[in-house]
Amino acid sequence: MIICFVGRSKSGKTSIITKIIPILRSKGLKIAVIKHAHKDFEIDKPGKDSWKFFESGADVLISSPSKLALIKRVSSDDLYEVCKYFSDYDIILVEGYKKTCKRKILVAKNINEVKDIGIDPNTVAVVCDEDFGDLNFRDTEIKMFKRSEVEKIAEFIYSLFKRYKGLRE
Amino acid sequence: MIICFVGRSKSGKTSIITKIIPILRSKGLKIAVIKHAHKDFEIDKPGKDSWKFFESGADVLISSPSKLALIKRVSSDDLYEVCKYFSDYDIILVEGYKKTCKRKILVAKNINEVKDIGIDPNTVAVVCDEDFGDLNFRDTEIKMFKRSEVEKIAEFIYSLFKRYKGLRE
Repeated sequence: MIICFVGRSKSGKTSIITKIIPILRSKGLKIAVIKHAHKDFEIDKPGKDSWKFFESGADVLISSPSKLALIKRVSSDDLYEVCKYFSDYDIILVEGYKKTCKRKILVAKNINEVKDIGIDPNTVAVVCDEDFGDLNFRDTEIKMFKRSEVEKIAEFIYSLFKRYKGLRE
Repeated sequence: MIICFVGRSKSGKTSIITKIIPILRSKGLKIAVIKHAHKDFEIDKPGKDSWKFFESGADVLISSPSKLALIKRVSSDDLYEVCKYFSDYDIILVEGYKKTCKRKILVAKNINEVKDIGIDPNTVAVVCDEDFGDLNFRDTEIKMFKRSEVEKIAEFIYSLFKRYKGLRE
């Protein structure tokens, strides 16, 4: 199951994802994270052998008995295309991909950010510390959480996962 | 086609691979490199979001329009298993995997290293700056190169690739 965390930079997405990973893993789930970078990014350390190979024009894989790292040129960042790398995972937590994601949690510092970004039919929850005021989601299916409620957010994602799995079985 | 560069640390494997990548790419070939690390390795930068996700227990993919990076826990470093990430590449240059590789080039600083490491039926070439002396490969199929002869080494690999491709067509 794919679930995306969307919201402004510095809204707390990374912190929430980092905290819910161990909670979901403790339920025996295999968890992956996909982070969307809008432009090219640095991952390897300049001067290292693997960096030299990539700079020379080859795509690179480093293989060890416990970990592998793959660094590859691509011509597309399509979410559902890159998800194939995690086909045998239970939950893929995604940071970004606001437009393409079909199941998303909006994280915002304040209610103005929620209004600016906006919710849509794919929004399943809103995480925001401020009172929702006149933004009333009570007639919708949208769940509301404070940013500190990581246990509750993890439980919510777990409940979505169980429903998703039930539908597929 | 998979071809492995084996030899001691500091024998010049990385330097040779780095130089032959652009030569092979200029022939229109899609090139990947697999580097074998005997133990866990550092790839990401501590403190970065992707590093935090991995440390929290999730496997991680960073996706951009031009590059992706995948960092994943594995339980095996089997060469032929990891090669599946490069199934649509022409040549996979491998650094390491001395024991499993079926087509290998031995790189050595001197003739003693060649003798110590030893050649076997899977060795297709030896790269060494010292004169081969009493090590006579002339009755075998093994090619000999100096470490500076990167153009010749690339041509040799290209000839192996053409033969390999011919056999598969």
